[in-house]
Amino acid sequence: MSDNFRELLETFDNQFPQRDYEIEIVCPEFTSVCPKTGQPDFGVLTFSYTPEAKCVELKSLKMYLQQFRNEGIFYENVTNRILDDLVAVLAPRRMKLVAAFSARGGITTNITVTHEADR
Amino acid sequence: MSDNFRELLETFDNQFPQRDYEIEIVCPEFTSVCPKTGQPDFGVLTFSYTPEAKCVELKSLKMYLQQFRNEGIFYENVTNRILDDLVAVLAPRRMKLVAAFSARGGITTNITVTHEADR
Amino acid sequence: MSDNFRELLETFDNQFPQRDYEIEIVCPEFTSVCPKTGQPDFGVLTFSYTPEAKCVELKSLKMYLQQFRNEGIFYENVTNRILDDLVAVLAPRRMKLVAAFSARGGITTNITVTHEADR
Amino acid sequence: MSDNFRELLETFDNQFPQRDYEIEIVCPEFTSVCPKTGQPDFGVLTFSYTPEAKCVELKSLKMYLQQFRNEGIFYENVTNRILDDLVAVLAPRRMKLVAAFSARGGITTNITVTHEADR
Amino acid sequence: MSDNFRELLETFDNQFPQRDYEIEIVCPEFTSVCPKTGQPDFGVLTFSYTPEAKCVELKSLKMYLQQFRNEGIFYENVTNRILDDLVAVLAPRRMKLVAAFSARGGITTNITVTHEADR
Amino acid sequence: MSDNFRELLETFDNQFPQRDYEIEIVCPEFTSVCPKTGQPDFGVLTFSYTPEAKCVELKSLKMYLQQFRNEGIFYENVTNRILDDLVAVLAPRRMKLVAAFSARGGITTNITVTHEADR
Amino acid sequence: MSDNFRELLETFDNQFPQRDYEIEIVCPEFTSVCPKTGQPDFGVLTFSYTPEAKCVELKSLKMYLQQFRNEGIFYENVTNRILDDLVAVLAPRRMKLVAAFSARGGITTNITVTHEADR
Amino acid sequence: MSDNFRELLETFDNQFPQRDYEIEIVCPEFTSVCPKTGQPDFGVLTFSYTPEAKCVELKSLKMYLQQFRNEGIFYENVTNRILDDLVAVLAPRRMKLVAAFSARGGITTNITVTHEADR
Amino acid sequence: MSDNFRELLETFDNQFPQRDYEIEIVCPEFTSVCPKTGQPDFGVLTFSYTPEAKCVELKSLKMYLQQFRNEGIFYENVTNRILDDLVAVLAPRRMKLVAAFSARGGITTNITVTHEADR
Amino acid sequence: MSDNFRELLETFDNQFPQRDYEIEIVCPEFTSVCPKTGQPDFGVLTFSYTPEAKCVELKSLKMYLQQFRNEGIFYENVTNRILDDLVAVLAPRRMKLVAAFSARGGITTNITVTHEADR
Repeated sequence: MSDNFRELLETFDNQFPQRDYEIEIVCPEFTSVCPKTGQPDFGVLTFSYTPEAKCVELKSLKMYLQQFRNEGIFYENVTNRILDDLVAVLAPRRMKLVAAFSARGGITTNITVTHEADR
Repeated sequence: MSDNFRELLETFDNQFPQRDYEIEIVCPEFTSVCPKTGQPDFGVLTFSYTPEAKCVELKSLKMYLQQFRNEGIFYENVTNRILDDLVAVLAPRRMKLVAAFSARGGITTNITVTHEADR
Repeated sequence: MSDNFRELLETFDNQFPQRDYEIEIVCPEFTSVCPKTGQPDFGVLTFSYTPEAKCVELKSLKMYLQQFRNEGIFYENVTNRILDDLVAVLAPRRMKLVAAFSARGGITTNITVTHEADR
Repeated sequence: MSDNFRELLETFDNQFPQRDYEIEIVCPEFTSVCPKTGQPDFGVLTFSYTPEAKCVELKSLKMYLQQFRNEGIFYENVTNRILDDLVAVLAPRRMKLVAAFSARGGITTNITVTHEADR
Repeated sequence: MSDNFRELLETFDNQFPQRDYEIEIVCPEFTSVCPKTGQPDFGVLTFSYTPEAKCVELKSLKMYLQQFRNEGIFYENVTNRILDDLVAVLAPRRMKLVAAFSARGGITTNITVTHEADR
Repeated sequence: MSDNFRELLETFDNQFPQRDYEIEIVCPEFTSVCPKTGQPDFGVLTFSYTPEAKCVELKSLKMYLQQFRNEGIFYENVTNRILDDLVAVLAPRRMKLVAAFSARGGITTNITVTHEADR
Repeated sequence: MSDNFRELLETFDNQFPQRDYEIEIVCPEFTSVCPKTGQPDFGVLTFSYTPEAKCVELKSLKMYLQQFRNEGIFYENVTNRILDDLVAVLAPRRMKLVAAFSARGGITTNITVTHEADR
Repeated sequence: MSDNFRELLETFDNQFPQRDYEIEIVCPEFTSVCPKTGQPDFGVLTFSYTPEAKCVELKSLKMYLQQFRNEGIFYENVTNRILDDLVAVLAPRRMKLVAAFSARGGITTNITVTHEADR
Repeated sequence: MSDNFRELLETFDNQFPQRDYEIEIVCPEFTSVCPKTGQPDFGVLTFSYTPEAKCVELKSLKMYLQQFRNEGIFYENVTNRILDDLVAVLAPRRMKLVAAFSARGGITTNITVTHEADR
Repeated sequence: MSDNFRELLETFDNQFPQRDYEIEIVCPEFTSVCPKTGQPDFGVLTFSYTPEAKCVELKSLKMYLQQFRNEGIFYENVTNRILDDLVAVLAPRRMKLVAAFSARGGITTNITVTHEADR
């Protein structure tokens, strides 16, 4: 698993750090590859976060997520890894990521991961 | 009732044990056999769990659930037994299983079982 | 009012008494007879209970409920009586029964009864 | 199969025979008994007809339909028989009966029968 | 059955007789009395008509319909009679009345009557 | 305002007084008359109560409510009066009545009254 | 009834008269006054038309419709009158107006009028 | 592919052959096995037919469909074969079968086959 | 009104001119300016066309539509003009454009225009 | 544009060529790449066809469609090309393909192509 996708994520300054507010980003076109079967997986990613000093730039987020298009990775790992990358780059006050993957073999999977900044 | 279905369950290491997160798995194609009438039963299984050291591999879960296809077993027993098998193999922090069975004789049944790890 | 319907209820051992779990049973085809008018009544019965040592066998529950098909009995009485019969046979940790009867004379009635085991 | 239920059907004169109009009657509480298993069946009957000289009195229709409560009869036969009885008593210009029966063994059945008067 | 309710219906001149247009009136608060049981009936009346020389005044229609509040009359008769009264007073080019009555004894009834002017 | 409607209410003994349970009764066909305009009002009455020694018999409740059909009375008064009558006859542990009246002049009114027995 | 509202309607040239196309305009905020009771009426007007040489300018249509705010006029008359005014000003190839008025005294009314140009 | 499942289908005489009427049967619990992967398939079968001399008995139809539970067969073949079996046993005036199979590999399939008797 | 927006529309060759097929394009983010008030208008444009020799390139269509962002133009004119531009550039076999504009002053407008090639 | 994807499509013999029946296949997980921007496109493909001598094997169809995952191609071309490939391999009696692509730059596109065999 290559680790340098994170470098694609660009940010801009949160101009309102004195306010606790929420940003929700929905990405219904996420696709990666199953590491066991080599078959493509499809999912909907929903991010919601409260920024501290930085916000993620959306076009760079799109380019970052497209890197997984031909990457073999388990649902649980890709979901946690994406959260980790965003937390590392943004250091948000809190962030939640819900990944809802399409049915495979008649089975549907949803992963929910959250991060809360230390205070 | 044979007990060795559990051996079919494969796991992979939870690479993010420091995080408390939730995995939801929905299996709408569960089928077993009524032990009284020999007729097939149909149900929707919904698992939700927080992993400790291990996650269940989905294809092995599918193969495991297919073992019940020709097994005669009561709703209450199959639901508890599946939870027990997953708890034994995964030792999750917590797990819930809701089994919603289709109507038989005009009667619908839903079973809800939960497990919480000792702390 | 005959009292021996209760004998029709069969049980099987709860193989998981160490676990506190819930069983919900929905019976949309209940019918009895109004003791004042002799006209048939129709209702939906929804049971939810946590078993102690015993679970109710569903086919026997169906046969038991069918005994009321030609029985003249008030809504309030039939609802309480069915709960009493199931409590007597199962001795559950707790049980709730909601009986929703169809409109008669433009009037709809819902009865909710609960039982909690002594501890 | 007893044939004298038909005698229970009462009529009243259609006071507006010069007009071609439609009467729709929906009976969601029909119940009979399966002739193979002895188990109760449940269904929704929907009549729609144009009267000639007579209309069916609703309370008598209710009493007539209640005669099937403990009668063992196939879906197809009971639907056709009820249409025949109403046609015999009313001689309507046209009549349709749709009978939608509840699931048995996971299988749902709907029967549609129609009658058109000779001209 | 008293016939003089019709006198309550007031009209005003159709100021646009050269145009063929449609008026739809919905009355969800109709109530009369069952001639067999003396019990009140409730229904929704929906009129749709194309006026010739006259339109019905709505407040007078409301007062007219309220006359049936304590009148014992069959569904079929009240529906046809109301159509007849409106046709007599308005002589419309065409008129349809749909009367949907609330359930009685678990049975729901809808009556549809129409009138077309001779040309 | 006549006071003897209350005599129409019949009761039957609550056979399960040792249990605290709830009875909900919905009456969508209530109608009375506005004391200012003489126009009919329409409403939905929803009762919910826990019986002490007595339950209300439903057919007598229907006959009781029909007495208001031609009675001129304000929304607030009729709602409180009906609660008072039922409390007087049943002496329930607790009772709630919600009366939702249809729109008049584009305005809808809901009245909620409750009674709690002294302990 | 004053007739000079029509002068408020402004038009602009249909720049595409060689094409047969449709314009639909929905006005959910129409209000006038009942000529019998003096009470306000509310309705939704839906126009659809094919222009010949002229289109109606929307702001002037809004101002025109607002003239009826304090005008006492029957539903049927206001609907036909508005169609007549628009036909007089636009001379469209065809036009339809549906006016759906809110409930008054528990009665709802919808009026549909159409115009087709002579060919 | 074994051919003797057909023998399980039982019929009863159509007692109303002089009438052209329709029977619709919905079976949401059909399951067979994919001949390529050995994995179970799931589908909803909807039959609609007009009987000639015979009707299919529903319990035997259920037993017949259960024979496919462990049978490896393509969607297209199983749908056509079931229609052929029913046509052979019933010789209906006309019959349609719609088979809607659950998603496999992210792909959903519906098959529609019809039979019309020669006249 | 400037006319040179049309030059922004790019095309690519229809590689399948022997086939009569349909392309539907929905643009929910169209905005222009009202020529009377200077206020922004918003609308949804839905194109459907059958290409002859050329297809419209989508990014150029987006750039073309964005030219109207600060353009003062009536609904009817902009809709017809866009259709004319696309017909001029593509010469399609047939094309339809439906423009649904958001409410202004409480009034909603939809315009439908079509083009059919001469044969 | 490489042409050899077609070789991946496998077929099996239509065992029921004497019957004219319909197969519908829905593929909601199609993805290719925009030839202008290099960005991924996503769409839902819906095939419906009547087979002649051959049916398409579903797993091979899935593998075939996955070949477009990293292929740069216009919507119109990919839709027509897929239809051409399936027609070349299956020679069906008739086939329709509807491709519904997700929004790009705020613009949604649907392509519908059909093929009818010469007779």
